[in-house]
Amino acid sequence: MVQALIFDVFGTCVDWRNSVAVQVRMRVPGVDPFAFADGWRAAYDPAMAPIRLGERGYTPLDQLHLENLRRVAGQFGVEVPDSLNRAWERLDPWPDVVAGLRAMKRSRIIAPCSNGSIAMMTRLARHGELPWDCILGADIARSYKPDQAVYAAACEALQLRPDQVMMVAAHNNDLAAAAACGLATGFVSRPTEHGPDQATGFVPTGDWTLVADDFLDLARQLT
Amino acid sequence: MVQALIFDVFGTCVDWRNSVAVQVRMRVPGVDPFAFADGWRAAYDPAMAPIRLGERGYTPLDQLHLENLRRVAGQFGVEVPDSLNRAWERLDPWPDVVAGLRAMKRSRIIAPCSNGSIAMMTRLARHGELPWDCILGADIARSYKPDQAVYAAACEALQLRPDQVMMVAAHNNDLAAAAACGLATGFVSRPTEHGPDQATGFVPTGDWTLVADDFLDLARQLT
Repeated sequence: MVQALIFDVFGTCVDWRNSVAVQVRMRVPGVDPFAFADGWRAAYDPAMAPIRLGERGYTPLDQLHLENLRRVAGQFGVEVPDSLNRAWERLDPWPDVVAGLRAMKRSRIIAPCSNGSIAMMTRLARHGELPWDCILGADIARSYKPDQAVYAAACEALQLRPDQVMMVAAHNNDLAAAAACGLATGFVSRPTEHGPDQATGFVPTGDWTLVADDFLDLARQLT
Repeated sequence: MVQALIFDVFGTCVDWRNSVAVQVRMRVPGVDPFAFADGWRAAYDPAMAPIRLGERGYTPLDQLHLENLRRVAGQFGVEVPDSLNRAWERLDPWPDVVAGLRAMKRSRIIAPCSNGSIAMMTRLARHGELPWDCILGADIARSYKPDQAVYAAACEALQLRPDQVMMVAAHNNDLAAAAACGLATGFVSRPTEHGPDQATGFVPTGDWTLVADDFLDLARQLT
């Protein structure tokens, strides 16, 4: 019944923390690259809040990332080039992702449903060879997950009912919002998204349609 | 300087006339399949006119195609299943297209900029193995080419300036509108889009950035 799989990207498909840290280490001497990556990422959700609330017009994530980069650089007392913002277009996929997506693509439409922009997701796909059929997400809906408008816009763009679409994510709150919209849900555990000492957030806490160890396991369960 | 190539699809990438006629021949006995395909296609531009003029809200092309199918079936005095509308998701690429797109994708972002919806373009890409990086066009802009908003929305979605993007089409009016928006232009001749007796419309009439025999020739000229 599920004809399309839509995917969270940051953390679910790609290892943003190690990938951003690599770019920071190369380009910002004298800071702990993981602390810098964590600080940059910590500013992500608060930056979207005013847009979800309608207090700020829709602004692509690239711009929010740039504003956050400048703020975090100030907190760390370092100068950084604006071009470091492109780190978010060079995130490496987890090792199972490309093979898993290829397997799932054989029988179903696959697309990101990310808070990243079309521009960012397009370049990220080229970097990591993610074989998407199309790019959905925040830019289509002009809002940010977990706003239900984003999941609804993804289904509408594919001209599928919500129950014909499965949201796949490593984050319970993303799946809860998708389920509230009527989508099927697939949980994939990413126990090191936040580093080797991550203690929480990688165990399913909802009654999700499928729970998988990784994308290859998810592909197997879907066939 | 050109970082992305955006493509007209119907006629430029795919042979809509022969492909639609194949579906009509299989599913609508007793009509000339080419006459039916031509009649269906002739209703395409008039159906978009009220949307371009703002007299009708944005309506995805799938819906306009369905309305046109029912009208043309009436003109031919035949009953047709609504599912024949899916013919537009099963159009075959011209023989040079997949290899040409693969070659161009090595160095540049490639995306359709079509009046087809994301849903239609996604399924068409899966049918023809068109290796798009993302899907742009009418659904992103909520308007129809040659409305300049469509070309501008494609550039904005890629976060590129218009002069960093080339519109590729077999139709001079499409390229004229893109050029007026500041995009580079690539003309590809498709002398049999409208059948073996096509007399006009396949010769470049503007001062386009590039003029190519087919996608392989265009790929060569771009390197």
